[in-house]
Amino acid sequence: MMCMARMFMIFVLLIVATAAQDTFDLRRPSCRGGKGNGGCRRFDNELPCPSWQSGFETNNLHWKTIPEACVGYVGQYMYGNQYKEDSQAVIKEALIYANSLRLPRDGKNVWVFDVDDTSLSTLPYYARYGFGVEPYNATSFDDWVISWSAPALQESLKLYKRLLCLRIKIIILTERRDDQRSFTEKNLKCAGFHTWEKVLYKGPPFSGETVTEYKSAERKKLEDAGYRIVGNIGDQWSDLLGTNSSYRNFKLPNPMYYVI
Amino acid sequence: MMCMARMFMIFVLLIVATAAQDTFDLRRPSCRGGKGNGGCRRFDNELPCPSWQSGFETNNLHWKTIPEACVGYVGQYMYGNQYKEDSQAVIKEALIYANSLRLPRDGKNVWVFDVDDTSLSTLPYYARYGFGVEPYNATSFDDWVISWSAPALQESLKLYKRLLCLRIKIIILTERRDDQRSFTEKNLKCAGFHTWEKVLYKGPPFSGETVTEYKSAERKKLEDAGYRIVGNIGDQWSDLLGTNSSYRNFKLPNPMYYVI
Repeated sequence: MMCMARMFMIFVLLIVATAAQDTFDLRRPSCRGGKGNGGCRRFDNELPCPSWQSGFETNNLHWKTIPEACVGYVGQYMYGNQYKEDSQAVIKEALIYANSLRLPRDGKNVWVFDVDDTSLSTLPYYARYGFGVEPYNATSFDDWVISWSAPALQESLKLYKRLLCLRIKIIILTERRDDQRSFTEKNLKCAGFHTWEKVLYKGPPFSGETVTEYKSAERKKLEDAGYRIVGNIGDQWSDLLGTNSSYRNFKLPNPMYYVI
Repeated sequence: MMCMARMFMIFVLLIVATAAQDTFDLRRPSCRGGKGNGGCRRFDNELPCPSWQSGFETNNLHWKTIPEACVGYVGQYMYGNQYKEDSQAVIKEALIYANSLRLPRDGKNVWVFDVDDTSLSTLPYYARYGFGVEPYNATSFDDWVISWSAPALQESLKLYKRLLCLRIKIIILTERRDDQRSFTEKNLKCAGFHTWEKVLYKGPPFSGETVTEYKSAERKKLEDAGYRIVGNIGDQWSDLLGTNSSYRNFKLPNPMYYVI
C-alpha cells in the first residue's frame, strides 16, 4: 500500500514537472530537425500557394512538406523565370553591398556561404520527388550527396567570384555531415567553387541542435578566432538568424524545404 | 607659412580619422531614418516588380521609394486579393501559435503590436501618393495622423481579439511620436483596438536611432519590468529584428515603404 502511494506521488511529480517545463520554456524550439523535418506542422492545401510562399519566405510559417496543391506552383516557380529573377535580385544587392565595403587588409574578412541551395542546387534531386511534397528521405539524399553531381547556383557563383577578387575569404558552413566532406568538396570544386578558407561540417556534437544554434555556434568560433564576418548568405532563415551573424545577411528563395 | 603647414596636417589627420572610421565600423547602420528615408538606395526600375518585392520582404533590399515602374503593381497588390490573402496566411499562423501556448497565469504575458500597417492601415494615405513612389512627406503624414481616420487591418484585429480572450496583454509599440499620443489612441479605439497594457511612443531620446535600436531598447525595458513577450507582430523587419524579441515574430507584408 505504501509502495502504491509512493508510486502515485512519483507519478504526480512527473506530471507536474512536465507541465512546468511546457509552461515556462517558451524559447525552446517547437520544431526540430534536419531537412524536411524542420516544420512545426504540415500544411494541407489550406492557403493559396503564393500566400504560403510569401508566408514562409518571411519566416512566418514553419512547414514539413510542400502542400500537395502547390507541387505545380513550385515546379513552375523553380523552372520558370521567377526563381532565377528573385535570386538575381538578391545577388545584385549583395554585390552592391560587397563592392561598397572598405575593409582593413588584414586577411580576416570572410563571407559565409551555405551549401545546399545556396552554393549547390538540389533542384535536380527534388524535381524527382515532387519538389518537396514527399517527406525527406535521408537515404536517397545521402545518395545524391555521394553522386557529387549538384550544379552550382550560377548567381551565387557570380558573388563568390567577385568576393575573391575583393580579397574577401570564403567560409562554407553547411549542415552536411563530416563524413560527407570528400564528396561535398569534390562537388563544390567541380561546380566552380574552387577555393575557400574553410568548409565547416556538422559534427556529432551538434546532432541534436537546431541548424540556427549550430550555425550560430560555428560563427561565434570564427569571430573568436579573429575573423570579421562581412556577409552571410543562405536559403534558409536558420542560416541567417541567431547570434554572430553579419551586418548584412542575404536570403535566397527556396520553396522546396524548410529547415529550422 | 607655419600656419598653412599646420592646417594641412590637421586636414590630413581629419581625412585619415574619417577613413579609419569608415573602414572599421562595419555594423553601423548604412541607412537611417524614419518612414521612407530608411533605404540605403533608390531602386530605379532595375528589377522586375515581383523580385523587388520578394527581395525586400525577405530583408535583402533596403529602399527609399517604390520604383516608378511598380506603382501599378503595388496598387494591384494592395487592392487586389493578394495583400489580403498574404496577411490572412500570417495571422492564421499567429493564431495557431497563440492558441497552442500554455502560459503561467501571472498577468505577465504580452504580445507586441506595431501601429502603422500592423494595427492601423495607412493604405488610404499612401494611395493618394502613388503607393509610396513619392518621397516621404512628414507634414502630410502628420496631418494623416491628426485626422485619426486610419481603418484597422481586419486580420490583425482578429488576432488582437483572440489574444485578449487568451488573457495575453497587448503592448503597442510604435515609432509615432509622443506628441501624437492622443490622436493615435483615439484612432486605435475607434478602429476596434479598445484596450491595452501600454502604448509606447518614440520620445526625443531615440530620435537619432534606427527603429530596430529603439524597439529593441523598449522591449528590453518590458522584459526588465517582468513582462514575458510571447509574440511580436509588425510589417517592417525593424519591428522584429534586434534584441529582446519574441520566440515567434510575425511579419505582415508592406510594399509601400521600408523603415530600417
